[in-house]
Amino acid sequence: MLTLYYAPNTCALASHIALEQAGADYRAVRLDFARNEQRSPEYLKLNPKGRVPALVSDRGVLTETPAILQYVAQTHPAAALAPLDDAFALAQLNAFNSYLCSTVHVAHAHMRRGYRWVDDEAAMAAMKQKVPQNMADCFALIERDHLQGPWVLGERYSIADPYLFTIAQWLAGDGVDIERFPKVAAHHRRMQADAAVMRVLAAAQAPA
Amino acid sequence: MLTLYYAPNTCALASHIALEQAGADYRAVRLDFARNEQRSPEYLKLNPKGRVPALVSDRGVLTETPAILQYVAQTHPAAALAPLDDAFALAQLNAFNSYLCSTVHVAHAHMRRGYRWVDDEAAMAAMKQKVPQNMADCFALIERDHLQGPWVLGERYSIADPYLFTIAQWLAGDGVDIERFPKVAAHHRRMQADAAVMRVLAAAQAPA
Repeated sequence: MLTLYYAPNTCALASHIALEQAGADYRAVRLDFARNEQRSPEYLKLNPKGRVPALVSDRGVLTETPAILQYVAQTHPAAALAPLDDAFALAQLNAFNSYLCSTVHVAHAHMRRGYRWVDDEAAMAAMKQKVPQNMADCFALIERDHLQGPWVLGERYSIADPYLFTIAQWLAGDGVDIERFPKVAAHHRRMQADAAVMRVLAAAQAPA
Repeated sequence: MLTLYYAPNTCALASHIALEQAGADYRAVRLDFARNEQRSPEYLKLNPKGRVPALVSDRGVLTETPAILQYVAQTHPAAALAPLDDAFALAQLNAFNSYLCSTVHVAHAHMRRGYRWVDDEAAMAAMKQKVPQNMADCFALIERDHLQGPWVLGERYSIADPYLFTIAQWLAGDGVDIERFPKVAAHHRRMQADAAVMRVLAAAQAPA
């Protein structure tokens, strides 16, 4: 039995969807960021980073979305969520996920988590101003070079898809109209129509 | 034959070391960032991100350090650079590398690449101020929770090691004394004494 710690509207959604699509034996535990539960002594003992996602298995605790996604794919091969038998295709998938975590998620974080990198308010305001352009630039690159369609890797669905879906959810709040990127927008609608995605979104948003 | 595009003092060093340690059939092509070669039309055709590393293979171009590192390990299994047969251990390794790319490298980038996230000089100066503390916080976490010693994964050397070595190279320039972290400092010296690391550093610093 796996346990996923998550919070609504965070990147943990990608791991949550992957677990559901893998048919994994898991339970999901929601943290309330408004009550700062990710910084509680109990949770910090589990995940000293004080962030989500964290995935608890018999062997220990895993963090970081790209690592959790590949782990779910590798331990549930029947779900065929990654090209595990093709090192180059897997590397392309990992390059995409790595770009999402190190560039796109980071570009987004400058909107509401500027305190990670500066202490003064004026600098945080300066960061917010640039977020719409940075997110638009990232998604222009994704639209042109990386989203092969209908899925990220082309005909083959993979763990890159729930991750892209998760970060694309943030575009509106970052001041970017997803419709500027027709392939991304179509991908988003395709994901929203998926039964596993609908189950996860309903569970994640339900009253605690 | 693989071709690695790199520049000195960038995170491409990790991939360069991994290729050398894997005994890969590769050549390394140095880009001159002072002449902005990473933004030349020829290079942008190869890697539209305009960054290094990029690894060119028969199948196409790979980017993003964690993806390249796993690819090198998977395609050179005799070098035993990753626990490929153990999904949990591989996920721990990938979580470490993902933390380096999405949190530690990003913390460092606010020192000299602040223009990625803000347009005004005062905000860039505010970013620089916080870099030493952020880098120290990251390395305190690595020292306490992640570097098992002697290597990142314990007795087993892996692709996490050249990546940690690469980012630890930046500590001095970021105003952080590596000796504050005795395990990281010992790891650094161990890596500096490695013959493959010495060959790569000599090649990377040699006159063009």
